[in-house]
Amino acid sequence: MIQKRFELIGMPERPAKPRKTGRTMMLDKGLSSRQVEDVLDVAADYVDIVKLGWGTSVVTPTLDRKLAIYGDYGIPVYFGGTLFEAMYLRDQLDVYKRILDDVGVRHLEVSDGSITLPHDEKLELIEELSRDFTVLSEVGSKDQEKILPPYKWVQKIRSELAAGSAMVICEARESGTAGIFRPNGEIRSGLVDEIVDMVGADRVMFEAPQKGQQVWFIQNLGPNVNLGNISPEEVLPLETLRLGLRADTLFEFFKPGVPAGEAGELPEFP
Amino acid sequence: MIQKRFELIGMPERPAKPRKTGRTMMLDKGLSSRQVEDVLDVAADYVDIVKLGWGTSVVTPTLDRKLAIYGDYGIPVYFGGTLFEAMYLRDQLDVYKRILDDVGVRHLEVSDGSITLPHDEKLELIEELSRDFTVLSEVGSKDQEKILPPYKWVQKIRSELAAGSAMVICEARESGTAGIFRPNGEIRSGLVDEIVDMVGADRVMFEAPQKGQQVWFIQNLGPNVNLGNISPEEVLPLETLRLGLRADTLFEFFKPGVPAGEAGELPEFP
Amino acid sequence: MIQKRFELIGMPERPAKPRKTGRTMMLDKGLSSRQVEDVLDVAADYVDIVKLGWGTSVVTPTLDRKLAIYGDYGIPVYFGGTLFEAMYLRDQLDVYKRILDDVGVRHLEVSDGSITLPHDEKLELIEELSRDFTVLSEVGSKDQEKILPPYKWVQKIRSELAAGSAMVICEARESGTAGIFRPNGEIRSGLVDEIVDMVGADRVMFEAPQKGQQVWFIQNLGPNVNLGNISPEEVLPLETLRLGLRADTLFEFFKPGVPAGEAGELPEFP
Repeated sequence: MIQKRFELIGMPERPAKPRKTGRTMMLDKGLSSRQVEDVLDVAADYVDIVKLGWGTSVVTPTLDRKLAIYGDYGIPVYFGGTLFEAMYLRDQLDVYKRILDDVGVRHLEVSDGSITLPHDEKLELIEELSRDFTVLSEVGSKDQEKILPPYKWVQKIRSELAAGSAMVICEARESGTAGIFRPNGEIRSGLVDEIVDMVGADRVMFEAPQKGQQVWFIQNLGPNVNLGNISPEEVLPLETLRLGLRADTLFEFFKPGVPAGEAGELPEFP
Repeated sequence: MIQKRFELIGMPERPAKPRKTGRTMMLDKGLSSRQVEDVLDVAADYVDIVKLGWGTSVVTPTLDRKLAIYGDYGIPVYFGGTLFEAMYLRDQLDVYKRILDDVGVRHLEVSDGSITLPHDEKLELIEELSRDFTVLSEVGSKDQEKILPPYKWVQKIRSELAAGSAMVICEARESGTAGIFRPNGEIRSGLVDEIVDMVGADRVMFEAPQKGQQVWFIQNLGPNVNLGNISPEEVLPLETLRLGLRADTLFEFFKPGVPAGEAGELPEFP
Repeated sequence: MIQKRFELIGMPERPAKPRKTGRTMMLDKGLSSRQVEDVLDVAADYVDIVKLGWGTSVVTPTLDRKLAIYGDYGIPVYFGGTLFEAMYLRDQLDVYKRILDDVGVRHLEVSDGSITLPHDEKLELIEELSRDFTVLSEVGSKDQEKILPPYKWVQKIRSELAAGSAMVICEARESGTAGIFRPNGEIRSGLVDEIVDMVGADRVMFEAPQKGQQVWFIQNLGPNVNLGNISPEEVLPLETLRLGLRADTLFEFFKPGVPAGEAGELPEFP
């Protein structure tokens, strides 16, 4: 949030934590415990949830300490979808659940970005797992060749939410070059429009690791769009984009010339 | 500076702090207090001034602690020009000055990278603000389409220095793709030549976030060119470029075969 | 290594430290002492050797403290080849050896990525220096125009190993755009094949800073290929690539459908 002494007029409103819109998911791909403390020392207010990328938790010797720090800050953590997929492939989902219980992680991603998982089975898994965990499910392939048409995205997102998914994440990879993006990082804007029109933006989170991508979402869906795969050092910069405090969005929310009271209201949320 | 035990012959001379040439401006876009300590533990000697990028200070809860650490190291700090522009747009420059007084920041950037600010008014602002602050002014647009011809750059730089600007910063953005650079990051070398010819290089600082850009400036303007928008982890690497200790500039200052006494003298400063 | 509680079946085997294959060389280009502690807190098991990039050690005021921390973790450190080249150019190799003795560094890189060093002389230097130091020698030019044919690479690597080099490093630069890679970062795969066929992969280390490059090596040479120029924050991600715990290599080692006992064995090392 805006620090007290900076009384800028006409700023977009950002809900306080725990918030239901305008969420930021941070991608932790191997931070040490002290590095987590450092990031949260400045960015705790802006991080709503943390993903320990793909299988990095498997090779993190200090996992418990790390989880404890995120826990102290009240920030939920989940393991990347690729770990789920690795466990699924091995027919070890029971082991996976035991591990999550063991480390005290209560959120879980169900994804099929790399594996072939019949959608009926995915829905069953979401239903079953959402009894014990907060399930985030992911739609979209990591394979740049596998282009799903927009109506299929919408079908999948709707049915996964109906099956018990708390939020659906739209795939982009760490690099921002798959799923909702073209291989060159350009957004598939028609796809995003259709998703937002048909599903709404509240229960969907878009992975958007590149600044240009974040700008596009904020310009098109407003400051309180849910964005994911944000690297630790980009959490604060993203918050400035949401608030119109970086060149790219300076004129997005504040309209000079418009009397202060009327300017800067939150753009309607799609 | 070169650590004592490394007695390499024929090294370019680098002035000690506080220096008037060969300055490095570090871009802090959201470091925590401890991260600042970490960076300065190795790089304090090489950082002349720090910019808290655009409006990041507005969302930094630990701003006072951070400023105190930079202060302990005697390194001046200023807030990015976009924050100035956000305040100007809102007709809140008086508030801005009060905030700066409140946090004890004595340097201030006056820029018009995103806003339309008539140059006469910019000069008046520089004149007025330079009574209370050390003013750094910035020339060049963040908009890649707005190409200013070289003679206009020179006019602006000269008049801003005359109005009281302590140093003029030539725009490049965090990405190095605007202002003195083309959208692909390539340098507008004719422009830089004209600036240096007409104004000199001492009171001008070039933003040069990319390594190839830094190399170009060091090769063309010598080791003691003023460079800005250097990310924290690139401060030490930049210092090695200045000293000819990285492949790109290994032969820039030391000429093998030339007797040690004659080699390695500081190239004439433009 | 895989943390105990994650009992995934069919994982590729990774030798424990000190290991002779599957080594990772981390590139430290100016970390502070505390940043080194942070990295090693999570990644110590995955870092086999550390290079203080090019001449960064010359401008690191906290060098002794840093070396002490790496020493506490039993991780050998060496200075980048460009520093060797800078010393060689100045005819100061005796000074260089004294410095290494002084700081207690026992590994040394002999390279000619930027300088012209007749190969006979390079071999003599390797022979001489390997009496007092563990010599790592590097093959390949940093100059993207200097393309060495594969058989020349093989000749050089073989003769340098014969002269006393403990391991030969194949050049790629920090950027991954020279030596074994084309300027666009694409791998010269025929070259790598010939090197591995003729020399074997054990005593060769490939610099591979980009993820796509690491994936290529792991897919083609197995999880225990020696890789170098890995930035600190990419050490853990690389370990997940080696273990098939990231999307890019998920199917590399584990074959679904194959009974657990038969799957996931270590691919034959070339």
